[in-house]
Amino acid sequence: MLKGRHLIEPGDFELDEIESIMQLADNIIADPEGYSLVCKGKLLASLFYEPSTRTRFSFEAAMLRLGGEIIGFDDPNNSSVSKGESLGDTIRTIECYSDIAVIRHPREGTARLVSKFANEMPIINAGDGGHEHPTQTLTDLLTIRKYKGSCDNHVVGVCGDLLFGRTIHSLVKTLNRYQGVKFVFISPQELKMPAHILHQLDSQNYQETTSLDEVIGDLDILYMSRVQRERFVSEEEYLRLKNYYILDRKKMKGAKEDMIVMHPLPRVNEIATEVDEDPRAVYFNQAKYGMYVRMALIAKLLGVEDKK
Amino acid sequence: MLKGRHLIEPGDFELDEIESIMQLADNIIADPEGYSLVCKGKLLASLFYEPSTRTRFSFEAAMLRLGGEIIGFDDPNNSSVSKGESLGDTIRTIECYSDIAVIRHPREGTARLVSKFANEMPIINAGDGGHEHPTQTLTDLLTIRKYKGSCDNHVVGVCGDLLFGRTIHSLVKTLNRYQGVKFVFISPQELKMPAHILHQLDSQNYQETTSLDEVIGDLDILYMSRVQRERFVSEEEYLRLKNYYILDRKKMKGAKEDMIVMHPLPRVNEIATEVDEDPRAVYFNQAKYGMYVRMALIAKLLGVEDKK
Amino acid sequence: MLKGRHLIEPGDFELDEIESIMQLADNIIADPEGYSLVCKGKLLASLFYEPSTRTRFSFEAAMLRLGGEIIGFDDPNNSSVSKGESLGDTIRTIECYSDIAVIRHPREGTARLVSKFANEMPIINAGDGGHEHPTQTLTDLLTIRKYKGSCDNHVVGVCGDLLFGRTIHSLVKTLNRYQGVKFVFISPQELKMPAHILHQLDSQNYQETTSLDEVIGDLDILYMSRVQRERFVSEEEYLRLKNYYILDRKKMKGAKEDMIVMHPLPRVNEIATEVDEDPRAVYFNQAKYGMYVRMALIAKLLGVEDKK
Repeated sequence: MLKGRHLIEPGDFELDEIESIMQLADNIIADPEGYSLVCKGKLLASLFYEPSTRTRFSFEAAMLRLGGEIIGFDDPNNSSVSKGESLGDTIRTIECYSDIAVIRHPREGTARLVSKFANEMPIINAGDGGHEHPTQTLTDLLTIRKYKGSCDNHVVGVCGDLLFGRTIHSLVKTLNRYQGVKFVFISPQELKMPAHILHQLDSQNYQETTSLDEVIGDLDILYMSRVQRERFVSEEEYLRLKNYYILDRKKMKGAKEDMIVMHPLPRVNEIATEVDEDPRAVYFNQAKYGMYVRMALIAKLLGVEDKK
Repeated sequence: MLKGRHLIEPGDFELDEIESIMQLADNIIADPEGYSLVCKGKLLASLFYEPSTRTRFSFEAAMLRLGGEIIGFDDPNNSSVSKGESLGDTIRTIECYSDIAVIRHPREGTARLVSKFANEMPIINAGDGGHEHPTQTLTDLLTIRKYKGSCDNHVVGVCGDLLFGRTIHSLVKTLNRYQGVKFVFISPQELKMPAHILHQLDSQNYQETTSLDEVIGDLDILYMSRVQRERFVSEEEYLRLKNYYILDRKKMKGAKEDMIVMHPLPRVNEIATEVDEDPRAVYFNQAKYGMYVRMALIAKLLGVEDKK
Repeated sequence: MLKGRHLIEPGDFELDEIESIMQLADNIIADPEGYSLVCKGKLLASLFYEPSTRTRFSFEAAMLRLGGEIIGFDDPNNSSVSKGESLGDTIRTIECYSDIAVIRHPREGTARLVSKFANEMPIINAGDGGHEHPTQTLTDLLTIRKYKGSCDNHVVGVCGDLLFGRTIHSLVKTLNRYQGVKFVFISPQELKMPAHILHQLDSQNYQETTSLDEVIGDLDILYMSRVQRERFVSEEEYLRLKNYYILDRKKMKGAKEDMIVMHPLPRVNEIATEVDEDPRAVYFNQAKYGMYVRMALIAKLLGVEDKK
């Protein structure tokens, strides 16, 4: 039962619970009309202590498409924190007004902390600093499922900033819970997958490389990631590394015909726009699946998954 | 008849009109479903020229839970005022789009001024500087009614910053219109209740003291208030006075078993968090009643109080 | 067929298409209830890269009064652009979540650019720098139609800043597509109608003058405009010219009894408030028609114009 639960990190849910969300997302995609009133009379609090238009839009569109409504803010300066109030008090007050809350906060651990103060209101973590972003992981899983039938038995290349990439760490840990997933980690030396993630994997299930060209032909899925300017200490370091692994049409020639290219967006230049028209480029559909999986998640946590 | 009226300060309404709002709030609390469509097709303009997440959320949740919708802003920089437009023109334009408006503004008297330009659209004052905040008063009254049966015949302790406390002045003036209310004003000398409020009271109906401990045992209701940093001229003055009257578990031992502790929130440290679990601490439920009383108020002003 | 089309500038639509929007607006005004659910389940993305409370409210109220819902932002700092994303990627992502988008952007040409990236989602330009603002033009046309029966055969005075006035250029070009419209351009020398607009008119169909008093008696419609501070290089130049043509009660005495005074709002001081009560002053109703014409436009572009 997911009703009344919080989602702070993907590990909060069992694999069969995650699969039940995927199943509901499938049902919603098949009949969006049928689910357009399940959240009638429900309010979602959309609490963005850090701006993130994309994630906010995805959650708000999800709730509205279920027939629910939104209260919220997208600007840290408009929070009551400026009056010296604790986050605990804030969340207990917001629980007076709303049925479910989504929180994004620049400080790691905030979503978990806040969830301890909510009595009955489910809390969804929409990103807490460099820590977790579990609905991005659900988005990625649903995309794989829609294009590949299931999340089992794929060779998954992960390319770019593997050191700081929040969404990538969550995805790798979660995919590792499925059957027969093999990883290929592609990054410059300076941005390699950290040891604490590698230690959770069977050493036979991953390889590391600095060359995208050498391995692209082996991949069922290529997950590209952005090199975030804000993670670097110096501007030179950023400029030197950001162009390291640019996926273009030429590189795509070496890939399987049914490989899919994923990206959490926004991208800067790590995928050339000429790749957008390649049918293997699925990152914009991935954003769409992000909305559907959030619809499924909200409906599950509110316990309103039956069509109306 | 409250339909089409403005609420700028509690004195705008007769006591029986206030009681009719309380009665409707009771009905809504008993059957929220029954009122979930009464504002269908109505728009509330939520005009926050000064951020106040809590108050804004309360109004917006109220309107949405009545089936209405919201347009609005929560950032003074996004107002058309920057183009040199008068507030009168702004409100006449907003009346073209919406059915009722809530306004919060840092300047005293703005809500009253604005209400003179609205032809048919009811205006609700959600706080104008240090002046009035009438829906907080309605919130307080509903809370007392729900816990104590009515607002008559209580001994009400009011503690903290009584000099600048906007919500407290409104509450005292309004409670004084009920039968048999006795006040105990508890504050440091520097923050005593101002003379212009005391002059409105019968001198037999209030006492002043600097000691919470001495009087807590006499109280039916203890209304705590925040010492707002922004009201002080110097930082030292603020730091010296803010911890003066902290309500903790030890002090609560001296109180009656059925005394209730109220607070308009947000609190800083004037109530220790250890008090939160005491059943006499009702401030979070108070916030919830704030939403219900705003639902009742909006429905009354729009003349849509019959269930659908 | 307007379904699925973009509106970037008035010239994008044929005159009979514009008239079909006017006709639908008439129908909505006659029976708003009947259209209150036509956008049920539809989402409008309200993308204000530059604040404009008035225009945003008008669009959002329009969508909500059709039964649709809104996602959006009104603050450029909250856009994903700050992460280095292209507007093309932004709009392709937003298309995943919403059915129609309104965009306002400080840079000329942005709305047109963005519309090239939308596959199926109609884009409405809500102002791009000093360039175009086509829904203001539709607003103006509907107002003329409601007060004068049609847009044909009027003498239209246009007064104020004719050099920089974005809304005025669009209006003149569009009115010129109707039958028998004669223009009287009233401005100081420094703010005359630019040659590129005059060249599009038959020289027999317009006259230029610096004196409002001399021509006011000839006009069926007087369109006043604001002198925008932000268009001037120096403060002295602004102060010298802003008071040039103030419409007051005395000037109104020279006008026809059925002349109407229009203004796109906000005004600063170019119309004295004493004129507001004159029945010929229709600028606040004009704002109301702005909402209705946007309702009609949205319904047309979404192809949902049948009553429910």
